[in-house]
Amino acid sequence: VTRRAVAIHGLGLIGGSLGLALRKSQDAPRVLGFDVDEPTARAALSRGAVDALLETSDDVDLVVTAVPPRVATELVPRLLASMPPKAVLTDLSSVMLPVLLAAKGSSRFVGSHPLAGSERSGIDAARADLFRGARVILGAPVEPVAGMWRSVGATPITMAPTIHDALVALTSHVPQVASTALVRTLRRTGSMTALLADGAGPGLRDLSRLAGSPPDLWFDVLTLNADKITPALELLEREVRALRHAIERRDPELRALLEEGRSFRREIFP
Amino acid sequence: VTRRAVAIHGLGLIGGSLGLALRKSQDAPRVLGFDVDEPTARAALSRGAVDALLETSDDVDLVVTAVPPRVATELVPRLLASMPPKAVLTDLSSVMLPVLLAAKGSSRFVGSHPLAGSERSGIDAARADLFRGARVILGAPVEPVAGMWRSVGATPITMAPTIHDALVALTSHVPQVASTALVRTLRRTGSMTALLADGAGPGLRDLSRLAGSPPDLWFDVLTLNADKITPALELLEREVRALRHAIERRDPELRALLEEGRSFRREIFP
Repeated sequence: VTRRAVAIHGLGLIGGSLGLALRKSQDAPRVLGFDVDEPTARAALSRGAVDALLETSDDVDLVVTAVPPRVATELVPRLLASMPPKAVLTDLSSVMLPVLLAAKGSSRFVGSHPLAGSERSGIDAARADLFRGARVILGAPVEPVAGMWRSVGATPITMAPTIHDALVALTSHVPQVASTALVRTLRRTGSMTALLADGAGPGLRDLSRLAGSPPDLWFDVLTLNADKITPALELLEREVRALRHAIERRDPELRALLEEGRSFRREIFP
Repeated sequence: VTRRAVAIHGLGLIGGSLGLALRKSQDAPRVLGFDVDEPTARAALSRGAVDALLETSDDVDLVVTAVPPRVATELVPRLLASMPPKAVLTDLSSVMLPVLLAAKGSSRFVGSHPLAGSERSGIDAARADLFRGARVILGAPVEPVAGMWRSVGATPITMAPTIHDALVALTSHVPQVASTALVRTLRRTGSMTALLADGAGPGLRDLSRLAGSPPDLWFDVLTLNADKITPALELLEREVRALRHAIERRDPELRALLEEGRSFRREIFP
């Protein structure tokens, strides 16, 4: 029996962490990696995130793309055309439908989006335990891919790509925009950052964390999933306005608005 | 030398934590406590947050009010009129100016707002280390009060009450409203909470945490500091709208909006 081989394209936070985790897993496959940025590829090799850099002659069973979503829409069709016929390809973008469309619905392709991350990025931020305990949403139940995620301690769940994209618009993309909008509001008030830091409790740190995420990645995600995100952002504007009006008028109804928010939060995170 | 005595009015999360911390501090004062809610008072006594419940005949050096801000505006003038002449009173509300006005600017009064907390509340959530490493904003440099905070591991800093209120509007009150607005947005979309929980990464958990805070407390805070909060909320609405429009149009400018947010976040939290 020959040892399975996985090729990872893109060795940043996500691809690098997957490599580190796979190499430490039971029955670890051979992990081959590629990154367009040579220093990143060398750093991945020296950190032990890959066994070796990928050669065009390498035979692999599983191909993983961990690149910005806009790059994925270009890279995925090319890899599907060139990879070994037995191989399966999974793309780790946090937007599924545009990549699935680029893959022309190939049965050898499935999106898998790990609900794990960090506002840090790049190979230096990669960690072997990034996916431990995390859920991974799969666009279809493809066993070699589900098995790969289980082997690094994650829990795969299956969801139609269009539902996935609508769901992460609410749970991830709208929070991302809300965090950026909040930080931009502080910036607009012209407040000195030293003073803001003096007045900052743990709440502001938590709420502004996502605003520290990489802008290039988020430009792709937000624009690729724009149709699902913008209606929810319109609702967010209305909710801020309703709360502002209730505060302005010292309206007793404000108590109910806050209470409904608290109850719903407890339903999501019991 | 007789041992100093501190009276704490209100034995919830904040008052209870202060009692626990003071009793464990070096040269611990005698800690006397009062709460209008009898089960809370008994729980504080049995948890060791106070040495004894406060009696009207007790002689004290320092009086602390750790009650909802609206209650503070009524309680503080009454206590100033009845407490021993040597005693100093500090109120721990997160809004300073309305309580200072209620105290009629008495030189025996100072607001002190610890930048520490939890979305949990009540005596059961109290912890001896709640203030360790936290900053406490004092409305004026009053030594017995500053000394009390240092004795529980906090760092007192002095700031004019009106600047404090403007600052916490930005760093605490607007984030609170943003968090509630975000959770209410999810609620408005009619999404099933089980599905939302499936799709929730660490980002949503962080951003929605403040929405879990006690509504009654926040009704007081937001309405007492309304004048400072509502202009910033108007800016927040505009920032959400600007981001939404940039996403809708796939505007390359969106990258700059995200990047400015990221840079400013790094200035506040290097």
